Amino acid sequence: MREAPRSEGGATPLAEATRRLSTHTFHGGRVEEGPDHLAVEEPLEIRVIAERAGRREPYPLAVTMRTPGSDFELAIGFLLTEGILPDPGAVVRVAYCESGPPEAAGNVVEVTVAPGVGVDLERHRRNVYTTSSCGVCGKSSLDRVRVACEPMLGGVPSVDHNTIQRLPQRLAVGQAAFARTGGIHAAALFTPRGEPLVVREDVGRHNAVDKVVGFLALAGHLPARQGLLLVSGRASFELVQKAAVAGIPFLAAVGAASSLAAETAAALGMTLVGFLRDERFVVYAGRERIAG
Amino acid sequence: MREAPRSEGGATPLAEATRRLSTHTFHGGRVEEGPDHLAVEEPLEIRVIAERAGRREPYPLAVTMRTPGSDFELAIGFLLTEGILPDPGAVVRVAYCESGPPEAAGNVVEVTVAPGVGVDLERHRRNVYTTSSCGVCGKSSLDRVRVACEPMLGGVPSVDHNTIQRLPQRLAVGQAAFARTGGIHAAALFTPRGEPLVVREDVGRHNAVDKVVGFLALAGHLPARQGLLLVSGRASFELVQKAAVAGIPFLAAVGAASSLAAETAAALGMTLVGFLRDERFVVYAGRERIAG
Repeated sequence: MREAPRSEGGATPLAEATRRLSTHTFHGGRVEEGPDHLAVEEPLEIRVIAERAGRREPYPLAVTMRTPGSDFELAIGFLLTEGILPDPGAVVRVAYCESGPPEAAGNVVEVTVAPGVGVDLERHRRNVYTTSSCGVCGKSSLDRVRVACEPMLGGVPSVDHNTIQRLPQRLAVGQAAFARTGGIHAAALFTPRGEPLVVREDVGRHNAVDKVVGFLALAGHLPARQGLLLVSGRASFELVQKAAVAGIPFLAAVGAASSLAAETAAALGMTLVGFLRDERFVVYAGRERIAG
Repeated sequence: MREAPRSEGGATPLAEATRRLSTHTFHGGRVEEGPDHLAVEEPLEIRVIAERAGRREPYPLAVTMRTPGSDFELAIGFLLTEGILPDPGAVVRVAYCESGPPEAAGNVVEVTVAPGVGVDLERHRRNVYTTSSCGVCGKSSLDRVRVACEPMLGGVPSVDHNTIQRLPQRLAVGQAAFARTGGIHAAALFTPRGEPLVVREDVGRHNAVDKVVGFLALAGHLPARQGLLLVSGRASFELVQKAAVAGIPFLAAVGAASSLAAETAAALGMTLVGFLRDERFVVYAGRERIAG
């Protein structure tokens, strides 16, 4: 299904994900000079090779600012959760573009789609430039997700509230780049018993989720109806949408949830948990999946 | 320069920015049911009316997920910091679109550009779909900003380190929606002596910065070469870029800075501060503006 990866398999290698820089730290009246570790942020261009008007040429679809590592997963996860690819089986090859200048090496990923598979290349464009004259409001955004995703009334069985409270400390174990930099997002998928399946880090919350979904896609584990997805930051509409497309019925965030995130989760039959920290959490939707 | 605003003048009204929802809170073994306040997230469509091929028609440029309030500022700030409008003087009118269905009311803003002013409507598109074959890497991103912005070797004079340390508590005073929800970003502009000029809140960090820049544009205060910009989250490349376009030479973040944020700030002669909390902060670039 894909080319031999460079550093694609496991979690993001620290050498790629962080960079040393000389900084000054002010503390009270004192100043200290010394090296500090920063999360790396670099653009990744995602190109799709698919049939368009009878020809097959690379189509530059998007540039996302991301932390290098797990780039193939990021590309696949992005294409799936944005609704551009119909399912993981549509992909026949994922590879870095080799034809660019040296400084772009490793920053352009080409995804080749199987012949005859319909790819909605215009969909990403529609999300940015709405040309419709219909309503732009929370309800219309929600309706769009509702059409694209089946309601998830089953899926994850009852999850114990103690299991939920322990998720953040289990996430922390996999956050190597966060431990070094103190400033990078993470997303992780757990079993209903709280066992971690995959942890990914990125300067962008949405990228970390795309990397998790891409990992699941490449491993043949989508839809992930038995999964609990944990994100390090806040829960926005976009993250609920991405979880829903991946079939994940349970999303927990260390931070707050937005109004539209809560409304979308409720409409789709998902469980949405926020403020998961300090031995407590808030349930915004789907309380029936939580025992206790 | 613009139509009579609805709730545009001051900070975001709480009634628009937050919404009550019934939630369950788990704490240890206990569960409590009750209302909770969430930050509102709704899409805003930004349309530009400018001359294109001899005609003047609304062009739907972008949809951003934002917290309602200060929408005109958001639209203007977005158009300026993305490089789509050359300067605030290009705008002759900002208004909500009145012709859509009722549920879209207040979620579509139309910005009318003065006749004869060149507007780079394709620029936003280029950012998303790079069609160039040149390098996609940190350096090329940085070069693009460097071309668009003059280096800021002057600007803000010496700022005392005690003034910097006090900025977060001064920001907190203006964070009405954060106080209610515990989960919404903020951006604020301060004088070199630490006096707050404007505070704006939004579920999106970049939107909060756009609202601040839009406020400055509508008040005739751009470029803001004497301003200190503080953001509640982390400092990414995108935020450094937005500050640079607004002429703001000093950016401080409560969270970490990314590698490309630090490199871009250094290349542009800006000061970049991160981890501004708990009586300490880290300087990634432009230490010479800080006294002490």
